[in-house]
Amino acid sequence: MTPISLQALADRFELELHGDPDHQISALATLQQARPDTLGFLANPNYLPQLEATRAGAVVLSDQHADRFHGNRLVSRDPYLSWARIAAYLHPAPTAAAGIDTTASIAEGCHIDPSASIGPQVSIAADCLIGERVVIGPGCVIEEGVRIADDCRLVARVFIGRGCQIDERCLIHPGAVIGADGFGLAFENDHWIKVPQLGCVVIGPDCEVGANTTIDRGAIEDTVLEQDVRLDNQVQIAHNVHIGAHTAIAGCVGIAGSTRIGRYCMIAGASGIGGHLTITDKVVITAMSTVLESIHEPGQYGSGIPARPHRQWQRILVRLTQLEDWARRIARIEKQAGH
Amino acid sequence: MTPISLQALADRFELELHGDPDHQISALATLQQARPDTLGFLANPNYLPQLEATRAGAVVLSDQHADRFHGNRLVSRDPYLSWARIAAYLHPAPTAAAGIDTTASIAEGCHIDPSASIGPQVSIAADCLIGERVVIGPGCVIEEGVRIADDCRLVARVFIGRGCQIDERCLIHPGAVIGADGFGLAFENDHWIKVPQLGCVVIGPDCEVGANTTIDRGAIEDTVLEQDVRLDNQVQIAHNVHIGAHTAIAGCVGIAGSTRIGRYCMIAGASGIGGHLTITDKVVITAMSTVLESIHEPGQYGSGIPARPHRQWQRILVRLTQLEDWARRIARIEKQAGH
Amino acid sequence: MTPISLQALADRFELELHGDPDHQISALATLQQARPDTLGFLANPNYLPQLEATRAGAVVLSDQHADRFHGNRLVSRDPYLSWARIAAYLHPAPTAAAGIDTTASIAEGCHIDPSASIGPQVSIAADCLIGERVVIGPGCVIEEGVRIADDCRLVARVFIGRGCQIDERCLIHPGAVIGADGFGLAFENDHWIKVPQLGCVVIGPDCEVGANTTIDRGAIEDTVLEQDVRLDNQVQIAHNVHIGAHTAIAGCVGIAGSTRIGRYCMIAGASGIGGHLTITDKVVITAMSTVLESIHEPGQYGSGIPARPHRQWQRILVRLTQLEDWARRIARIEKQAGH
Repeated sequence: MTPISLQALADRFELELHGDPDHQISALATLQQARPDTLGFLANPNYLPQLEATRAGAVVLSDQHADRFHGNRLVSRDPYLSWARIAAYLHPAPTAAAGIDTTASIAEGCHIDPSASIGPQVSIAADCLIGERVVIGPGCVIEEGVRIADDCRLVARVFIGRGCQIDERCLIHPGAVIGADGFGLAFENDHWIKVPQLGCVVIGPDCEVGANTTIDRGAIEDTVLEQDVRLDNQVQIAHNVHIGAHTAIAGCVGIAGSTRIGRYCMIAGASGIGGHLTITDKVVITAMSTVLESIHEPGQYGSGIPARPHRQWQRILVRLTQLEDWARRIARIEKQAGH
Repeated sequence: MTPISLQALADRFELELHGDPDHQISALATLQQARPDTLGFLANPNYLPQLEATRAGAVVLSDQHADRFHGNRLVSRDPYLSWARIAAYLHPAPTAAAGIDTTASIAEGCHIDPSASIGPQVSIAADCLIGERVVIGPGCVIEEGVRIADDCRLVARVFIGRGCQIDERCLIHPGAVIGADGFGLAFENDHWIKVPQLGCVVIGPDCEVGANTTIDRGAIEDTVLEQDVRLDNQVQIAHNVHIGAHTAIAGCVGIAGSTRIGRYCMIAGASGIGGHLTITDKVVITAMSTVLESIHEPGQYGSGIPARPHRQWQRILVRLTQLEDWARRIARIEKQAGH
Repeated sequence: MTPISLQALADRFELELHGDPDHQISALATLQQARPDTLGFLANPNYLPQLEATRAGAVVLSDQHADRFHGNRLVSRDPYLSWARIAAYLHPAPTAAAGIDTTASIAEGCHIDPSASIGPQVSIAADCLIGERVVIGPGCVIEEGVRIADDCRLVARVFIGRGCQIDERCLIHPGAVIGADGFGLAFENDHWIKVPQLGCVVIGPDCEVGANTTIDRGAIEDTVLEQDVRLDNQVQIAHNVHIGAHTAIAGCVGIAGSTRIGRYCMIAGASGIGGHLTITDKVVITAMSTVLESIHEPGQYGSGIPARPHRQWQRILVRLTQLEDWARRIARIEKQAGH
């Protein structure tokens, strides 16, 4: 990147500068790996010890920690947000040349905007609409009748099933599968029959879908992500799920069919949410929790159990099996004591 | 779809018709999104309120709920099954034109039936057999010596490892990896060495494998799915696992090596099953459970913990650590009380 | 395979032979499926009953079990290790012909060693280095500036993101995604903004990455796997994680961002490890555990709960909600008893 002065950063990102306005930044780095020409940041107080030892040419930090560092400082009300904005400015997302790679396979009836970039080994079936500046990276498979709006980026090896719709500025990471059949089975005498999955997947603007994440098409209605939904890697979204705007879901979470998740929810890693539930807005689910009932009040919920030394945990497991007996014993003691 | 009369539906699917036999259905829809020309269904009593408000032209429902709706009814002993059969009749699975796409790469020694459809960007290695009407969708990779029997469909981006066998009418969703090496390691002094994985994966007829699901090849013997096994998305089946006929496994389940699962089992989402176990027929595992011992009796098993409000759950976690102490205290009280 | 005598096996792998030195082995098989010309092994004592019934022409086993079998024996201090070495000798990994498939797409500025094999439907972006005897299987996507060292094998449909580095002799299974963006979000007023992910993934020699496993690129620094790290299928490694040499991680494990895992750790299936933690060397995590705090002492840790019959488990869940009340009741009884 081209070097930039601290004064220029302070002006553009509305930060309070303490130190040398002409100091030049030519890279971003962690506090630990910093050099005099790098900019670092402190958002998580766990890293305060690194702040004291850092060789960074300047640090973005909050007012609260500003006196813990004596070098050049850029003081921000939200250092992590400022850092994100600076990094996005100095390291814009990779672009791709407009046009269709010679190895791509494009079926009839597609409308592909000339500004779009269709990479090598891509397959696009009939009647798709690909918007302006869309990037379809190598190895993506798009089934028939898909619409991908302006400025979306499918990084590589993404699958989009027939008739699905992706709104503007979505970013979809490698291996994501959007619009495969939901898991619909009916039992007939002695075997399963498949329930056709007639809905699609509809994704709002500004969503992000992580690597190897799967979002099933609806059984009858569509599976829906509203705007600015953020899914990490290896998330599983079953058929007919509806996820409200601005909800963020961490890696390895699974959400069963027909569940509605509200807006501004945060679901931590590896949690599971049962089917046919309603989770209201602004619910936080902690890591490795199992949600089996609807949640009607905003707030934090969980059922994850922190690991302990093996022998200690084994003793707890034994005690769990004794609770039924303890209930009787405590009641008997109380009775005897005349409670 | 072409409109169809209620009488025609009742006759074909052996349903009891109450209402106008000439009423025409031209689409399927949920009760909530229904219009007068759509057919809906009620299987889950949770949706009874929608039944009362629906504008559906007709509803498939059970005798038990028939008097809760005054429009046209198609009464079934199993409304969900009837719905599945009607939907499959009115919306047959997508077909693909026979032939080999010009961008596909087919190695020597393959026998590909002329009725099969090999899509764009497919790679098929030497000596594979591809049966009648098989569809190999875009981006699939088939290693050498694979046999895929009649009427299978690999939707897109499926991987089938060398020598694996897929029997008739299997449906395999995008991103599935069948026949990668199992996780076999032996420890030699101070490092791991790889244990060659010499078996294959053998899949019986009428199986379904979900998106991004992985099924490892056997270490020595094969990994086996019997007929009509149904796997949802992101399921992990380790080497030498054997899954009995008609077993259904929901999303994000992991099954460790050499475990045998019986017939007609149902394993709910995100559960984990340890290695070298035997699970008998007709076992149901509830969501997010951990199975660490063999199960010899049919029935329902589980260890998932429903999420609670964070502070309540934190208090329970503290109490868990106190159980060891409580055991002593209860015993002491009892002794003192002369029990 | 070409038949080999027991004497030849004993000599090459330093095993103690009891029985006929001229007996010829022409295949490897389990004890159960053995024939007189196959070699079996016994490492797990659970399979002792199979040993007594086996028709194997010879068995690799430990001194401890040598007298439980009266056929030809190859006695080893570590039968599983000996088995792995014999299997690797008799069944070497598949090779691939050197050269670049005509359907592969190779951008400018790449250096691909002439001994490397680039399969069908591969896409390699600009400025990549592909070492000697590297195999890039069908459908792999390599972004710009990637380095893949000698003797690596990417089986098929692997994604490697821009600038990532894979050291010698790594084996990467189908569907793995290495170097997708980490899940970095900052909250701005009422919506998320993406935090650019500026680091790469750096993988040491002799690592194995399972099918559909994902390893995110670092946010600022790199995500690192040291040498001989072994990841099973569907593992999720978040940005900036650092995994020490010789650590093995089983299927469906998720590790959140910036966590450091030590050397020689073993993490069993479907466990989750929180972010910003430090796990020391030689830590064993049992299956389906949740690690939420750093671990500074080697040893075994866990929090997985074995599944029980449904009604028994439901009663335990009810008792858990009563613990808060029990604490008060036990204290009251003790007070009354004058403890």
